[in-house]
Amino acid sequence: MLAVSEDRLLADLRALAEFGKVGTGVNRPAFSDADLAARRWLMGQMQAAGLETVIDGIGNVYGRSPQATQSILVGSHSDSVPHGGWLDGALGVTFGLEVARAARAAQSLVGVDVISFADEEGTWLPCLGSRTFCGELAEQDLSGVQTKTGERLFDRLAQLELRDRPLARLDPYRHRAYLEAHIEQGPRLITEGIDVGVVTGIVGLRRHLVRFRGRADHAGTTPMAMRRDAAFAMFDFAMSLAERLRAAGSADSVWNFGIVTVRPGAANVVPAEADLTVEFRDSAADVLERMEAAFQAAASAANGRFNVAVSSVPNGALAPAAMDGDLINDLAEAAAQAGASHIRMPSGAGHDAMILASRIPAAMMFVPSIDGRSHDISENTSEADIRRGFRVFAASVSKTLERLARTPGPHAPLARREKEPAS
Amino acid sequence: MLAVSEDRLLADLRALAEFGKVGTGVNRPAFSDADLAARRWLMGQMQAAGLETVIDGIGNVYGRSPQATQSILVGSHSDSVPHGGWLDGALGVTFGLEVARAARAAQSLVGVDVISFADEEGTWLPCLGSRTFCGELAEQDLSGVQTKTGERLFDRLAQLELRDRPLARLDPYRHRAYLEAHIEQGPRLITEGIDVGVVTGIVGLRRHLVRFRGRADHAGTTPMAMRRDAAFAMFDFAMSLAERLRAAGSADSVWNFGIVTVRPGAANVVPAEADLTVEFRDSAADVLERMEAAFQAAASAANGRFNVAVSSVPNGALAPAAMDGDLINDLAEAAAQAGASHIRMPSGAGHDAMILASRIPAAMMFVPSIDGRSHDISENTSEADIRRGFRVFAASVSKTLERLARTPGPHAPLARREKEPAS
Repeated sequence: MLAVSEDRLLADLRALAEFGKVGTGVNRPAFSDADLAARRWLMGQMQAAGLETVIDGIGNVYGRSPQATQSILVGSHSDSVPHGGWLDGALGVTFGLEVARAARAAQSLVGVDVISFADEEGTWLPCLGSRTFCGELAEQDLSGVQTKTGERLFDRLAQLELRDRPLARLDPYRHRAYLEAHIEQGPRLITEGIDVGVVTGIVGLRRHLVRFRGRADHAGTTPMAMRRDAAFAMFDFAMSLAERLRAAGSADSVWNFGIVTVRPGAANVVPAEADLTVEFRDSAADVLERMEAAFQAAASAANGRFNVAVSSVPNGALAPAAMDGDLINDLAEAAAQAGASHIRMPSGAGHDAMILASRIPAAMMFVPSIDGRSHDISENTSEADIRRGFRVFAASVSKTLERLARTPGPHAPLARREKEPAS
Repeated sequence: MLAVSEDRLLADLRALAEFGKVGTGVNRPAFSDADLAARRWLMGQMQAAGLETVIDGIGNVYGRSPQATQSILVGSHSDSVPHGGWLDGALGVTFGLEVARAARAAQSLVGVDVISFADEEGTWLPCLGSRTFCGELAEQDLSGVQTKTGERLFDRLAQLELRDRPLARLDPYRHRAYLEAHIEQGPRLITEGIDVGVVTGIVGLRRHLVRFRGRADHAGTTPMAMRRDAAFAMFDFAMSLAERLRAAGSADSVWNFGIVTVRPGAANVVPAEADLTVEFRDSAADVLERMEAAFQAAASAANGRFNVAVSSVPNGALAPAAMDGDLINDLAEAAAQAGASHIRMPSGAGHDAMILASRIPAAMMFVPSIDGRSHDISENTSEADIRRGFRVFAASVSKTLERLARTPGPHAPLARREKEPAS
């Protein structure tokens, strides 16, 4: 078992929350001054722990265990949404830091490397840091990236003197697993009184824009039977689609009709046009396919009903990411041994683990979110839940380290380096 | 039978369409220069027909048959919506002008007075002219009236040298009936191939703003059962309300859910708030009451469903106006005798006749609107339908004149004036 310190973890977490502090939350959008200050502080902590530490060309802060040729990569992100919570991302980074610190001190055979990915929240591009780390984004993909206000990513990176730095990269010979702790960002654990969530997969999603096209008529003079009411056709479609998605989905499937617009929007004019943004999610690819088929069937059945034309265009898709079975078992066993209750559950939100999972075995653990809140300064988790979650997480990393030490990786010999490089 | 001329009618109608002409329509908002020019032209036509003619302090143009102590008042309005059609209002005014001209020439015992009411379309205040004519609006009601841009009604009337003129007033001793021809402004006659519509009543309406208040949650992380989705509650309510209104209403009832807003309006956020503007109409007061009860029952049943709070506030009401049974019969008989097909139908839109009907017997006749269009320059009616409609209308006025001559009014002796006043 790694000799971790809960108090040191909490001290790190609270120190990190000072950067960009706004009331009970933080304001650390990617590449803001506060984000960079937090990253430089993190580098100092990693260096002090004896890790080889870099900030790379896209802002990832990476500390590696110099004694090991293979490692578990542990971390999350330290950027935030504007006026976000103090735990989102930061919790996983500090969990990773304390576990890496303990593994470094223990000179573990399989090391623990820690990382804080850049811009998970998508101020510039969602999961920018982890996607770059995994080699998903080439120079030309990044060259056009800019904020809504037109500031170019490359210009900002140059200002921060990051632009010319080398990129840290995923190394499948070294990184045998990725583990990320995170707040749940939903109400399930807190409502059901469960201590930790063991994530089985990160949901994929499909998004569609559905357009209803009828005709504007005088709402007093046009008999009901002669109308082509786009809004009413949309209401009917939404009710029917919800039924179909419920039937096609799993118990964990979710869907949302979040953007609704109706035109011309006058009390006495029959709506001519309505638009509906439909989104649905599940962590299983086959379930997502069934939901997609249900959506297409609903849109097809709706077309022409009430003399309203219905068409749809795909408006985004994300493939689900399955978490690794062995890592899931490590987390579940660690929870049981620590006397913490747990459930296996999907993650309904995206995370860096989703990017890593397509390359190496990955897993996530959730702690409860008070009232299910996140992306807001009201976001919080009780200290007892943070401590308990960390105990489970650290115990699980210990289990994984032992398991990996027993089962050498396919690609490289498992050995301590003969000479440690100079730090 | 009055000796009317269809050709003269059409010439008047086309001449009137030159004022404020815009493509195939007209732009004559109340008290615009084009509106006033049209009114001055109408005065000239009335004077030439031998009618005592005034433009009054609110812009009504009124021509009375000087030979009669009692009369049928016939007319409509000559103002238009911005970029409106050439027939809306103008048709009824010119029908009235030609019928009054013929009655004046015939020295009928019961006279025909003609009127063009001011601002029926509500550029300043809906039915401003007819409501003032009927004594519904006092000086203090009018003093605060202004356009959306802040121009005061009284200032504009003063500019036009109307402000100090006397007001023409409804005279129950003289005006024994009000008759108005109008385009249908709906698709029913043209779709069913019917020549004229005999209006049985002008619909009343109730309008309500319905508010749905739920909670914004992350649409990925919040299980379906834990959501308070305001938009979905609104969809469900709208479907249920439509069923209830259909059951409570008459075959002619109409309803509309014309304004729909959903907040915050993001694909991945469960809608926290939704607002729906509900409107329903019927020409029978008891039916309207039943629909109101159905609405209240639907709102009450919806409150709390899906953990969403539902409340509503009344947002406008108009009482239905029944048309006079004798005048309806005159119109129906005139149509039958002229070989024109007709149906009895409500008017789904408001008209000056709605104001007059609360004071004296009133009726309306519709001619077909091509494609049901109005309030747009595309508004039109075939010349054959205008001619046929006018024959029915003139024949009906003749019938009513004869009927009224046989049944003297309750208030005043029916007699030719001994001496006509000097014109």
